[in-house]
Amino acid sequence: MDEHVMRRCIERKRDGGELRAQDWEAIVAGYMDRTVDDAQMAALCMACVLKGMSFNEAFALTHAMVESGVKISFPTADRVVVDKHSSGGVSDIVSLVAVPLAAAAGAHVAKLSGRALGHTGGTIDKLETIPGFNVALSIEQFVAQVERIRCAIAAQTEALVPADKRIYHLRDRTATVPALGLIAASIVSKKIASGAHGFVFDVKTGAASFVSDPQRAHELATWLIEISKRFNRRATAIVSDMNQPLGRNIGTGIEIIEAREFLRGEGDRRARELVVKVASALLTHAGIDDADARVVRALEDGSGYLKMLEMIVAQGGDAAGFEAMHAGEELEIVARKSGYVHAIDVVRLGHAGRRLSAHDPTGGLRVNVRIGDGVEKGQPVLYACGRDRANAADLADAFFIEESTVAPPPLVYEELT
Amino acid sequence: MDEHVMRRCIERKRDGGELRAQDWEAIVAGYMDRTVDDAQMAALCMACVLKGMSFNEAFALTHAMVESGVKISFPTADRVVVDKHSSGGVSDIVSLVAVPLAAAAGAHVAKLSGRALGHTGGTIDKLETIPGFNVALSIEQFVAQVERIRCAIAAQTEALVPADKRIYHLRDRTATVPALGLIAASIVSKKIASGAHGFVFDVKTGAASFVSDPQRAHELATWLIEISKRFNRRATAIVSDMNQPLGRNIGTGIEIIEAREFLRGEGDRRARELVVKVASALLTHAGIDDADARVVRALEDGSGYLKMLEMIVAQGGDAAGFEAMHAGEELEIVARKSGYVHAIDVVRLGHAGRRLSAHDPTGGLRVNVRIGDGVEKGQPVLYACGRDRANAADLADAFFIEESTVAPPPLVYEELT
Repeated sequence: MDEHVMRRCIERKRDGGELRAQDWEAIVAGYMDRTVDDAQMAALCMACVLKGMSFNEAFALTHAMVESGVKISFPTADRVVVDKHSSGGVSDIVSLVAVPLAAAAGAHVAKLSGRALGHTGGTIDKLETIPGFNVALSIEQFVAQVERIRCAIAAQTEALVPADKRIYHLRDRTATVPALGLIAASIVSKKIASGAHGFVFDVKTGAASFVSDPQRAHELATWLIEISKRFNRRATAIVSDMNQPLGRNIGTGIEIIEAREFLRGEGDRRARELVVKVASALLTHAGIDDADARVVRALEDGSGYLKMLEMIVAQGGDAAGFEAMHAGEELEIVARKSGYVHAIDVVRLGHAGRRLSAHDPTGGLRVNVRIGDGVEKGQPVLYACGRDRANAADLADAFFIEESTVAPPPLVYEELT
Repeated sequence: MDEHVMRRCIERKRDGGELRAQDWEAIVAGYMDRTVDDAQMAALCMACVLKGMSFNEAFALTHAMVESGVKISFPTADRVVVDKHSSGGVSDIVSLVAVPLAAAAGAHVAKLSGRALGHTGGTIDKLETIPGFNVALSIEQFVAQVERIRCAIAAQTEALVPADKRIYHLRDRTATVPALGLIAASIVSKKIASGAHGFVFDVKTGAASFVSDPQRAHELATWLIEISKRFNRRATAIVSDMNQPLGRNIGTGIEIIEAREFLRGEGDRRARELVVKVASALLTHAGIDDADARVVRALEDGSGYLKMLEMIVAQGGDAAGFEAMHAGEELEIVARKSGYVHAIDVVRLGHAGRRLSAHDPTGGLRVNVRIGDGVEKGQPVLYACGRDRANAADLADAFFIEESTVAPPPLVYEELT
């Protein structure tokens, strides 16, 4: 792309104007062939953050990013493949359990996942703690496994949406992440390129999410659905709470353990509400009736757990090793005073969970209380596991306890289709 | 500078906050030692364009930029050295004539100048058309010449304010030029590092200037003065018109010819008004009384012209060659209809002047009418000179002629101290 043309595009965005679809195509292509450099892209991204982007621009950028790399397609023309996405949470075990549950209930689920980012966990990091589990499937292996056993969870490959990888890294360094259009394009482009036909977006909102304001989360959810529809994909978005950890465990292997217990029917009730919603929406997009009941049955009759074992084995994992995973000794962290839990510093817990699991695959945290719970001074609010657990002793400060009672935040704010 | 610290600085600016002086020091130092990269700097500059900068931030940035390189200082402690700056114009001969006039009238004038930028001319490019003239003085030569003959005009050296050079180039590519604080810091930092004690800023406003709105030009003028004062420098700013060329000639050598005729007493009356104001303000800052009368005398008694010859000889130029410079054959460009000149596309004329003088040192344009003048169809509005003059034939379109009369714009909007 010519430098003068790029300058004019930046100027138009800077001055509050709208870029055309062909501008976005040229900008992304130019960024990939290095005729648009990081400085120009960063200035444009900052102008997008501060001046906004129209829906048409977000769609055009998504399209341009999809075209920057390989697109997966599933061979059977009448097969509906579904996929889910989370905008990033703490103790977010939904992918780990909703994928095998939906597959057990009849859907074909093809999921490419990311790694931990900031304080939020990454499904790929978690799966890697299962002995032998291979997250690095080739596209052919990924497609074949979905055809054969109806589910796979693998790491993003470099070949898919390379523009997103470069632009996201740039935005992270230049404080230009929070632009609705840029966020939506980054999310949807990866889903489109991954080849599924129906998506469930779990849009987190609250203090520990990337979109803390529920109104903005609603807008993002709407854009994710509308952009997906422009690509002829079906989509549902669930706006869910991230003011406290979703499940109980925070880490990598320790979340695999929680997912395993969940699929054995011993899951946290709060997490279960969201998991059933997500898995049920996946089934619905796959064209399967009576979705809720099927998901609950897959959970209760153990077929979801068997599907998880099947997926582990299919990806080279050791099922016995998975069943033997355990968290080891715990450090009890107790409430400093009596009262009610008003808030939890989830960002701090997320970072601590990452640190505890960095050198010890089953290191991490187990949360014992939720917002609204009454606690007595000296009662455990948290358990720290793993080699470095002694360093977690001061995490009692992450629980804000007051004398007055408080209502817990809702888990699901809304579900949009 | 640590990447996370820089990210937080960008975030603060993005969210409308103010950076501290030590932040600006660290950012400029980091940009120079490459621990802050172009992408981060571009994002920060765009945030400055869209969210503004406080006066304290502009001062801190100016200070940090001055410290990025060498600072000139003049040896005699009680000597007041003065300098002038133009924010960029077309047919802007002020530096070429005000410097020798003020020196002839008793001031010590030390001027470092830039090259052409966009449609505007550069004093250094013009001086280079004088046979033998050396613009590349060392700092020692520059200082010694000002001591000896009271004036010098030389090219910016790489050693002074290297941060400005890099940041300006980045802003140009990333459409982040128009931030008041960034513009002011760029201008004042170079003046401070050049060593003078008093400055006259010629802030152009109007269609062909970088600050087209007179109110913004007023703000810029105020900031230039106030930042200079914070460095204990005296300063005057003159907001002057750039809706039409200042003088008559547009190019490089062709503007040297106009400057020569001007100093011989045959200057354009409009240009003369501004030249006298600038030279007189230079004298005033140099502590010389009765400034206006002395400037007019230097113009009328030929001492200004002799000072120009002295400066040319001091910088290796050929005085006879200078006196022999002439523009050669002209192409007459005539009005397409009768009426009054309502507007002139000065940007177009500026670019055309640069093209005409690119391969022919005395190529360029000579403007024959001003805004408000009545013209008859077929009467010359412009003359094109030089080898490529045939390409200038369609420049009649650069003159907007209407039937109604129109008042000419003022030349000087205000003078601030």
